[in-house]
Amino acid sequence: MSLFTGLSAFPLTPLADYEIHEAAFVGLIQRLSTAGVDSITVLGSTGSYAYLTAHERDRIAHLAVEHAGTTPVFVGIGALRTSQILTNIDSAQRAGVAGLLLAPMTYQPLTEHDVLELFDTVTQHTDSPIIVYDNPGTTHFTFSTELYARIAALPGIASLRIPGVPAEPAKAREHVTAIRAIIPDHVTIGVSGDAFAANGLTAGCDAWYSVIGGTLPDLALAITRAIQQHRNDDALQEAQRLTPLWNLFTGFGGSLRVTAAIAEYLGLVPYQSLPLPIQGLSHSQRARVAEVVDALELSR
Amino acid sequence: MSLFTGLSAFPLTPLADYEIHEAAFVGLIQRLSTAGVDSITVLGSTGSYAYLTAHERDRIAHLAVEHAGTTPVFVGIGALRTSQILTNIDSAQRAGVAGLLLAPMTYQPLTEHDVLELFDTVTQHTDSPIIVYDNPGTTHFTFSTELYARIAALPGIASLRIPGVPAEPAKAREHVTAIRAIIPDHVTIGVSGDAFAANGLTAGCDAWYSVIGGTLPDLALAITRAIQQHRNDDALQEAQRLTPLWNLFTGFGGSLRVTAAIAEYLGLVPYQSLPLPIQGLSHSQRARVAEVVDALELSR
Repeated sequence: MSLFTGLSAFPLTPLADYEIHEAAFVGLIQRLSTAGVDSITVLGSTGSYAYLTAHERDRIAHLAVEHAGTTPVFVGIGALRTSQILTNIDSAQRAGVAGLLLAPMTYQPLTEHDVLELFDTVTQHTDSPIIVYDNPGTTHFTFSTELYARIAALPGIASLRIPGVPAEPAKAREHVTAIRAIIPDHVTIGVSGDAFAANGLTAGCDAWYSVIGGTLPDLALAITRAIQQHRNDDALQEAQRLTPLWNLFTGFGGSLRVTAAIAEYLGLVPYQSLPLPIQGLSHSQRARVAEVVDALELSR
Repeated sequence: MSLFTGLSAFPLTPLADYEIHEAAFVGLIQRLSTAGVDSITVLGSTGSYAYLTAHERDRIAHLAVEHAGTTPVFVGIGALRTSQILTNIDSAQRAGVAGLLLAPMTYQPLTEHDVLELFDTVTQHTDSPIIVYDNPGTTHFTFSTELYARIAALPGIASLRIPGVPAEPAKAREHVTAIRAIIPDHVTIGVSGDAFAANGLTAGCDAWYSVIGGTLPDLALAITRAIQQHRNDDALQEAQRLTPLWNLFTGFGGSLRVTAAIAEYLGLVPYQSLPLPIQGLSHSQRARVAEVVDALELSR
């Protein structure tokens, strides 16, 4: 069974006064390990990888591996410049991580050729398994299906993280089946976009790369385990029950700000834990977040 | 007369084998100073600021000031994280630059509130004059006219770099006049997007923040000086003559890759001078660039 299946939880990297709050970060890692998630991916978009220095990223990778117990740790290695990515790989490997996550960050728009060459360079540089991270909302790079196929065929590619699936179940299954058909069997497909996750898993995705699972692991595990036990209706019903949460993600500027506000409300991380210039939610938005957390009993 | 008028030339930051090629960079600075541009802006998008480390950026700022003679040097200070921007400001000031250029880089999408707070923080941190850099093609942040007004009203804001103007002269003038009406008199308006520059200057822009001017300063100065001497038709005619060059910008993935290919063709910088993963132009694209350079006599 591939390491790159089931629930991979993406914790925040909490900051306080411009610095990483290490105690809060370690607390998140221990919480995820205790909950029994299948893997922990640190320094994803949720972990603010793009905002951190090479030194901070090295520190986060080491802390995660040290405190995750037997839970495998994956780490985001993305950066704007290839040489910085290679540096991040070397430090992640020294930390002893089980896999690497790479999104094609952009400032200047990248071509498909640029991105293929990037993944080729990276797979030649390391033997660690790699998750291809397709996240157009932050990278502004759009993968074609052909590019998925060409990258997935490179040695060392272990998983493909897709940004979501269509809402309609038949269309979702068709979408996942089409990707499955053009990538090697050993490459797993993971869904992201938490609101799509139950749909994606029932449509045949092998993994859920989960933002909310990094802060509320029990909630995400309930959905994941239901589908693994073929209780698809239970999973879809639970995802449906969480609609007010998904509506916060879309209404309040994305999952990161809302998840940080939830973690702050629950006392898991300090107040205003995101890297500036990203401001936390406003007081009235936070009040609404608290209402939803309480009404859906998300703190259980 | 404001420092932030006339032609500000944006040099490349040439790399070779993953490292800054300092001799080539110094050569570009001396070329611009000798040509008599009104200012040099290093570490703009053309100078690959987003790809460089804090240490490399510090080095570039120092080299530029050291070799620019009496030409004022401005430096790009943008970064994804506010704390990194403040570090860049401090090192730019130690280098002795005359102004700072700031674009709101994004990974997570930013709100107008985030960006206003960012400029507020920056203007409180420094007394150096600041150019507000609106570059939606790379930052994916769109300024509203209201946000222009609120930021331009902050102390220390010296200039607003707008991404282009409408092609139609009357519409261009209307656009520039509308911005002029809502920002303080001491804040200059500079046009970027080289193909729009002659139009923008004739429409009332005070400055041209020029990519091509960083590599071919005489060409950009001819247009700028013609307009300053009220020979608008000469300027527009020259811009028209350069249509094949502007077509390369749009056809070959943007001004950066094409300008780097021109500088490489002219021997000003080493071959493959852009930071990976950005690949240079293909052989056939380079052949077309060479044709245009020769046909338009751009190497004069």
